[in-house]
Amino acid sequence: MAWTIFTDGASSTTATLLPFRLSSLYRKNGVHVCLHRFLSKPLRVGVAMPTAPARLTVSLTHTSTSLSPVVASAMTTEASAKVIDGKLVAKQIRDEIAAEVSRMKESAGIVPGLAVILVGDRKDSATYVRNKKKACESVGINSFEVHLPEESTEQEVLKSILGFNDDPSVHGILVQLPLPSHMNEENILNAVSIEKDVDGFHPLNTGRLAMRGREPLFVPCTPKGCIELLHRYGIDIKGKRAVVIGRSNIVGMPVALLLQNEDATVSIIHSRTKNPEDITRQADIIISAVGQPNMVRGKWIKPGAVVIDVGINPVEDAAHPRGYRLVGDVCYEEACKVASAVTPVPGGVGPMTIAMLLANTLSAAKRAYNLA
Amino acid sequence: MAWTIFTDGASSTTATLLPFRLSSLYRKNGVHVCLHRFLSKPLRVGVAMPTAPARLTVSLTHTSTSLSPVVASAMTTEASAKVIDGKLVAKQIRDEIAAEVSRMKESAGIVPGLAVILVGDRKDSATYVRNKKKACESVGINSFEVHLPEESTEQEVLKSILGFNDDPSVHGILVQLPLPSHMNEENILNAVSIEKDVDGFHPLNTGRLAMRGREPLFVPCTPKGCIELLHRYGIDIKGKRAVVIGRSNIVGMPVALLLQNEDATVSIIHSRTKNPEDITRQADIIISAVGQPNMVRGKWIKPGAVVIDVGINPVEDAAHPRGYRLVGDVCYEEACKVASAVTPVPGGVGPMTIAMLLANTLSAAKRAYNLA
Repeated sequence: MAWTIFTDGASSTTATLLPFRLSSLYRKNGVHVCLHRFLSKPLRVGVAMPTAPARLTVSLTHTSTSLSPVVASAMTTEASAKVIDGKLVAKQIRDEIAAEVSRMKESAGIVPGLAVILVGDRKDSATYVRNKKKACESVGINSFEVHLPEESTEQEVLKSILGFNDDPSVHGILVQLPLPSHMNEENILNAVSIEKDVDGFHPLNTGRLAMRGREPLFVPCTPKGCIELLHRYGIDIKGKRAVVIGRSNIVGMPVALLLQNEDATVSIIHSRTKNPEDITRQADIIISAVGQPNMVRGKWIKPGAVVIDVGINPVEDAAHPRGYRLVGDVCYEEACKVASAVTPVPGGVGPMTIAMLLANTLSAAKRAYNLA
Repeated sequence: MAWTIFTDGASSTTATLLPFRLSSLYRKNGVHVCLHRFLSKPLRVGVAMPTAPARLTVSLTHTSTSLSPVVASAMTTEASAKVIDGKLVAKQIRDEIAAEVSRMKESAGIVPGLAVILVGDRKDSATYVRNKKKACESVGINSFEVHLPEESTEQEVLKSILGFNDDPSVHGILVQLPLPSHMNEENILNAVSIEKDVDGFHPLNTGRLAMRGREPLFVPCTPKGCIELLHRYGIDIKGKRAVVIGRSNIVGMPVALLLQNEDATVSIIHSRTKNPEDITRQADIIISAVGQPNMVRGKWIKPGAVVIDVGINPVEDAAHPRGYRLVGDVCYEEACKVASAVTPVPGGVGPMTIAMLLANTLSAAKRAYNLA
C-alpha cells in the first residue's frame, strides 16, 4: 500500500490524503501507465501556506479510524515533497483581484468585462464556460456570453467576435476551444482584437513572448499560472535547468518561453524525443503538459527537483462516484518521494488557469483606461 | 603546430588550410578564449560537394613548399570532420534563384524587388547593404535603396517604409540594423508590411514560427541558412538532441524554434546557464550564435556531433593585412578533431544569410502574384 495527496477542491488550506493500491500497469504509446484504486476515505492534512520558501512540514490529524498509526507514520517518511497548493494560491489571487475590481469601480466607475463565445454542445466546454462565468461574478467582473449552435458558420462566429471587439464594456474576449471541426480555428482566434486577447493565443502575443525586449499584451493563462506558482512558493528559476514536457501552443511552448525569459536553461521534450527520462532527470524544474496519465515516474525526477504537473487526465476508478478520477502526467505518489515540491492533480495548476484569466481581464480593463 | 580549414571566400569548390600556432589564451566573461597566429601561406584542399551524406575524404594538394609531408600527414589524421561549405551551397542556391527569376521574367514579366533602408554612416552597415545590392543584381532581382542621414527622425524612416509598403514593384523590405540610438527599433520594424518582411523579424512572423500548425510568411535569413545547410548535407534533425548557444531574436531563438519544428529535442544555452559545456556535450547538433571567439572548445563537443558556427568574431592578427581576422564561436581546429561535420568561419553560415534573403525576396514576389 502507498499514499497519494490531493487537494480537496475547496478554497481552504487543507489537502486530502488518499491511501491507494497500485491496481494495474499498462502500456500506452510506449509509456508505462500506472492505475490506482482507492481503498478508504480521505484523511485530512494541513498544508503549508505559499510564500514560505522553506520545505513543508506535513502535520497529520486522524479523521479516519481505519488507518493504523504505522501506516500514517510510513506516509510521513515517504511523502516528503512540499505540496504546491494551486487552489490556495488561486484563492489568494482572486481575493486580490476582487479588491482591485472593487477599487476601480468605486474610484473610476469602471467594471472589467469578459466575453465568452461558446459554439456547439460539448458538455465539458459548457462546464468550463459556466465555471469562468461564476469566477467572474465572484470577483465582480462582468461576464458576457454568446452561445452559438454547432452548425453555425465561421462568419457567424467572426461576427460575434467583431461585435465584442467594438464593445467598450468588453475588455477580454475568449473563444472556448475546441471549435467544431468545420471551422478554421486560426482564422477565428486571429480575429480577436490583440488588446482583448486575454487567452494570449494571438500569434502577435506569442511572437512578443518569444522575443527578448518585447512584451506580450497577454500571456496564456495556464503557463502564466505555472510561473506564478513558482514565484509565490519562492522557487528560484534563474540559472536553473528546466525541462518542459510537451510542446503545445497552449501550454508547452509558451511555458518554455516564460521559463527562458526568467533565465532558466530550458529543454523541451516531445513525442519524438528518444530519451525523455534521462533528460528530465537533469532538471531542477519539471513542467509536464503532455496529457499522458502518470507518464513521469519517480525515477525520471532528480532528487529535490520541483514538479509542476499541468496534465489533467481521467482514469477509470470504480470506487469513484463518477467511475473515473483525474490524475496528472506525473506519478504523484512517486514524485512525492523524490521531488522537493510538487503540484497535485486536481488542485494544482488547474485552479490557477481561471485565476490568470481573471488577472488578464483586469489588466485589459486597466490598459483600456490607461490605469496603472 | 596544428591546422585549421577556412573556405577561401570565392564561389568555388576549394577551401583554404592555414597552419597556425596557439599564440595566447585569455579569459573573457568567464570563458577561455584561444587566439592563434598564422604561420604560413594557404594550402589548397578539395572539399566534398554537399548532398552526399557520407563522410568527407580530404585530398591534399601542396601549393606551399614550406610544409613538410609529415605535417600534411598529421593534418589528415587530426582534422577528420566534414567541412560544411556554406560558400558552395550559397552559390548553388543563388544559381537556382537566378534561374527562377529568369523564368518569372520571361513567362510573366515579373521581376522581384528588394528595398533596403540604410540610416547613418556606419561603414560596416554600408558594406552589408552594398553586398546585398550586388547579390540582388547577380540573380536578377531589382534592388532599391534609401540612405537617410544619421540625424533623421523616426518619422522619416517610417515614411520610407510606408512608401515601399505601397510600392507594387517592391516585394521585400529590409531595414539595415543597427539603427541610430535615438530611434525605436521595434516601432520601425513593426511598420514593415508583414507580406514584405523578408528579414522575418516581425513579431507576427516569430509568433507563427513558434506555434505548431502555423506557418510564418518568412523565416529569418541566418537561422533559415543554418537549417538549409543541414538539409543539403543530408544531416538528420528529427529525434536528435540539439543545443543552441545564444538566445538572440535574430539567430538563437528562431533557430531553436526551427530545430524544434523539425522534431529535434532542443536545449537553449545562454549567459545564465551554469554548465554550458556539460549540456553542449550531450548534443548531436550544436548551433552556436553567441559572439564569443572560440568559446566552444573541442571538449564541449560529443564525438561525431555536427557543429554549425554562426559567430563571426574579429580577433587581432598581426600577420593579416587588415590586422585582424575572423573566427567563429567554435574553436575550429579542436572541433575538426571531434565533430563529424563543421562549418568554417568565414565561408560557413555567413554566405547563406544573403542567399536566404534572396530566397525570401523571391518567395515574396511569387506570393504577391499567387505563383506556385
